[in-house]
Amino acid sequence: MKVLDKINCSKCLKSCTMDELDVLSAEIREVLINKINSTGGHMGSNLGIIEATIALHYVFNSPVDKIVFDVSHQSYTHKILTGRKEYFIDPEKFNILSGYTTPSESIHDVFKVGHTSTSVSLACGLAKGRDLLGDNYNVVAVIGDGSLSGGEAFEGLNNASMFKSNMIIVVNDNEMSIAPNQGAIYENLKLLRESNGTYEHNFFKTLGFDYRYVDNGNDVRSLIAAFNSVKDINHPVIVHIHTLKGKGLAWAEENKELGHWEKGKFAGGGLTYQELTMNYLKEEVQNNKKAFVITAATPTALGLTQEFRDIAKERFVDVGICEEHAISFASGAACSGCTPIICINSSFFQRAYDQFQQDLALNNNHVVILVYNGKITGGDATHNGAFDIPFTMNVPGVECFAPSYVEEYFDCLDYAIHRANGPIVVRVPSSVIRCDNYVASDLNSYALNKTSDVLIMGLGNFYHLAKETAASLLKLGVNVDIINPLVYSEISSANLEKIKDYKLVVTLEDGIVSGGFGQMIAASLSKYGIKVLCYGQDKDFNDLVSLDQIYEKCHLKKELLTKDIMKYL
Amino acid sequence: MKVLDKINCSKCLKSCTMDELDVLSAEIREVLINKINSTGGHMGSNLGIIEATIALHYVFNSPVDKIVFDVSHQSYTHKILTGRKEYFIDPEKFNILSGYTTPSESIHDVFKVGHTSTSVSLACGLAKGRDLLGDNYNVVAVIGDGSLSGGEAFEGLNNASMFKSNMIIVVNDNEMSIAPNQGAIYENLKLLRESNGTYEHNFFKTLGFDYRYVDNGNDVRSLIAAFNSVKDINHPVIVHIHTLKGKGLAWAEENKELGHWEKGKFAGGGLTYQELTMNYLKEEVQNNKKAFVITAATPTALGLTQEFRDIAKERFVDVGICEEHAISFASGAACSGCTPIICINSSFFQRAYDQFQQDLALNNNHVVILVYNGKITGGDATHNGAFDIPFTMNVPGVECFAPSYVEEYFDCLDYAIHRANGPIVVRVPSSVIRCDNYVASDLNSYALNKTSDVLIMGLGNFYHLAKETAASLLKLGVNVDIINPLVYSEISSANLEKIKDYKLVVTLEDGIVSGGFGQMIAASLSKYGIKVLCYGQDKDFNDLVSLDQIYEKCHLKKELLTKDIMKYL
Repeated sequence: MKVLDKINCSKCLKSCTMDELDVLSAEIREVLINKINSTGGHMGSNLGIIEATIALHYVFNSPVDKIVFDVSHQSYTHKILTGRKEYFIDPEKFNILSGYTTPSESIHDVFKVGHTSTSVSLACGLAKGRDLLGDNYNVVAVIGDGSLSGGEAFEGLNNASMFKSNMIIVVNDNEMSIAPNQGAIYENLKLLRESNGTYEHNFFKTLGFDYRYVDNGNDVRSLIAAFNSVKDINHPVIVHIHTLKGKGLAWAEENKELGHWEKGKFAGGGLTYQELTMNYLKEEVQNNKKAFVITAATPTALGLTQEFRDIAKERFVDVGICEEHAISFASGAACSGCTPIICINSSFFQRAYDQFQQDLALNNNHVVILVYNGKITGGDATHNGAFDIPFTMNVPGVECFAPSYVEEYFDCLDYAIHRANGPIVVRVPSSVIRCDNYVASDLNSYALNKTSDVLIMGLGNFYHLAKETAASLLKLGVNVDIINPLVYSEISSANLEKIKDYKLVVTLEDGIVSGGFGQMIAASLSKYGIKVLCYGQDKDFNDLVSLDQIYEKCHLKKELLTKDIMKYL
Repeated sequence: MKVLDKINCSKCLKSCTMDELDVLSAEIREVLINKINSTGGHMGSNLGIIEATIALHYVFNSPVDKIVFDVSHQSYTHKILTGRKEYFIDPEKFNILSGYTTPSESIHDVFKVGHTSTSVSLACGLAKGRDLLGDNYNVVAVIGDGSLSGGEAFEGLNNASMFKSNMIIVVNDNEMSIAPNQGAIYENLKLLRESNGTYEHNFFKTLGFDYRYVDNGNDVRSLIAAFNSVKDINHPVIVHIHTLKGKGLAWAEENKELGHWEKGKFAGGGLTYQELTMNYLKEEVQNNKKAFVITAATPTALGLTQEFRDIAKERFVDVGICEEHAISFASGAACSGCTPIICINSSFFQRAYDQFQQDLALNNNHVVILVYNGKITGGDATHNGAFDIPFTMNVPGVECFAPSYVEEYFDCLDYAIHRANGPIVVRVPSSVIRCDNYVASDLNSYALNKTSDVLIMGLGNFYHLAKETAASLLKLGVNVDIINPLVYSEISSANLEKIKDYKLVVTLEDGIVSGGFGQMIAASLSKYGIKVLCYGQDKDFNDLVSLDQIYEKCHLKKELLTKDIMKYL
């Protein structure tokens, strides 16, 4: 019988011997490798934190004691230990759980999180509430070294240290962010590791923290001793543990960046937009003396491979996990005469909304922002790409493009990098679809020949859906016009002139309808009394809902659209 | 003849003797006190940094060397020294300049900024661009101690320290933020000051910085020596200068918080919403065991006086300048069972857009956010309150209210604090207008008796404009209906039912139209083919434009609205 067999809740751990906990670590490691290899997921961070998670649940009493995982991409062992092991063991249940802590799954998950650097602030809130209400429990934040570069982590530490009550911050230092760590704090962590925590210039101590160091952060006994020593402590303390990212899986230990995320066996093939973009940028950084590329910690996920980085050299900058800095940094570089190109995920871009508006748009500096994965997304609401259209298009002075085809995308890139002179956002399309007869032209002029009273405006990825819907309507004998608007930050008066004589206009956008392109079109047309139907995602988080279900619910399928449109004819 | 008389540009300084620079400091101090007392403005920070600004311009060669002021509220002396002195001396030109650095005013102003903690990141960008383009100049960021608590400042420092080239960061430590500093870093600065910069646990040194300390940061000679020692330096360096906030004005030296901002002689009277809210919250923190109030560094500006703080005790938390932390912190506290009430300025709230969406709304925790100064704003685009409607209402799961009257506001507060159970945003109204016959009822039900084919929906502050416009139309014999929608995050199907038979609907909102309430209404009504006219601010920054000009341009006046509506009848 396996040790894991008898672990049905975190309390079950308490009766285990140390030797059993060692065995349990090995068993969980095997379970995780098998499961992640099959479904994909965060490999390295989860393999590195198995022992620490066991030790946390051995020492603390969740859910009374609160354990807050930063990003929570490393919470798989936590899930296994808190009543959810079958979802990691039984292949039929592999794709049911969220990859992040999710309160609706378990009382042991305190917050739904998936963005970085927030755990210390959340823990401060728990501690404040506990103290005000006269409650008495441990508050534990678990934050990786990579997350420390995010500004909010510093904001949290700066406040946490001032608490006069229990607050335990576990810094899980596996010497890596998603990609290699960036920034001065990592030099300090290195010196702390090398001195077994005794280096005198200690970042955490300058912030007033009590501090403990555990060099072997993959040794259950050492961890339990350290956590026991801080349990019920009456002041804030940092427990700095040194763990091995990818532990137990040779290739993930070896290549920590590739080992961060395993695609799983169902990963697709074919040239991606990540690769197409990387190839394009490769030319730019070699031939354009002003251009350079910025990423905030996610080069691999965005296709900026080691090969690219080697070619780009000083024309590639990974600033680490700090989107705010990335945007202001780019605005500064544009001011000095360069043309920075920021590659960023839709869901993380929103972390720099203020910098985007104030430091960049208000200053009208020439920065190109390529938004990856800007699209309606199934699965976890923490990594949702549906929101970038509203938060980019409603900022004054920004030109926003959502191309539909490879050739059109390249045309937008060429305009954005070489011909524009202010801030530009380009939504990187999702499916690689080529346009054989693409003709470069004014990017903001609707090529429209009115042949019907009905117009479908298919923005970006959804131009293809517009085409399919038009074809489906044609089969029913209804001819409609379609347009690929491309620009979503405005409708020019010339373009408005071209569409204001339709009787019905249907807008489709691959994002949330609320505050987006369709509503802007509806408002632009509403003074003419034209009927407008706006399609996109409902204003809803859709956590753990499949993409197909969202499409179904929001009628983003050609059959449903066809039916809807027929009703209005 | 005064020394200031011969200073027509920053180059003129170079020929001054040290004694003349002392005299110049005194002359500028007199000019600033006189000017700020008359017009209002940032008093304390500007009086404290006169000598440092003179020294900076004496040593460095602006505009070739770039000086980036964080927030730039302390840039008055910089403006005086760079060709703009008459705007501080001649009362007739007192209200022409921006209170912040503004590139359109002068080539010496590198960025338009007014939000905190961005200067180091902007300077990193300048330095990166300089190095890539093979240029050669000094990059100097000037950041106050208060701004250091903002996460982006840490992101910037973490990256800045890794540069292999010139980067000078002047930390202007006047021992104050807007209100007293909050957080552990300030303990460190204190120990550094007390040890004349020699304290061994040095926050900046743990981040790898070279470090210089100037204890008398109001002594031109010491400052010039320090700046000369780092001019053309080939690596990043911190110059920590200790200055006196409010220097030369006894009451501002004495009470640094009140001295931060001088209202000027034209400040209005009467009870404000700040005071009304403070009185309401005073009751809450004394009688509601779950409630506590959070501010991010701006208690005085939001009416949270020292008297309030003394009463609230541990039920008032100033987290310092860190809006991201403030929101996550509140979400954590709500999770522990408390009811946090955040008081925040519209323009700064946007700094925590991601935390608002992910940590708060996605977790559906019960937090009340009171948005102050959410309204179309004349003057500086860095402190614009026109954007919060779109960035709050388009986040799923948030109930957003824009009350029009005092009584309605209190009703919203009561609902938000006592009856709601998720995240709530309440826009604090601008003008104190009472409603004698206010009847508490369901907050989200339109009380509408259709008597016309035209409906004006006046949201929040603009309900009063709707009333005035309706009266103006009535004088022309046109009867229109009006409604105060109150809720702007949605229109319920019951409310939609009540307005869908109008022929013309006009929406008015005190904010940007793009992505806002009116467009949502237009989209909701557009399937019925109803004409909708959306009024609010254009998608434009309107930097240094007066409120009256914006109202005129956007037709936000009863006469212009009346004319427009008449055209559509």
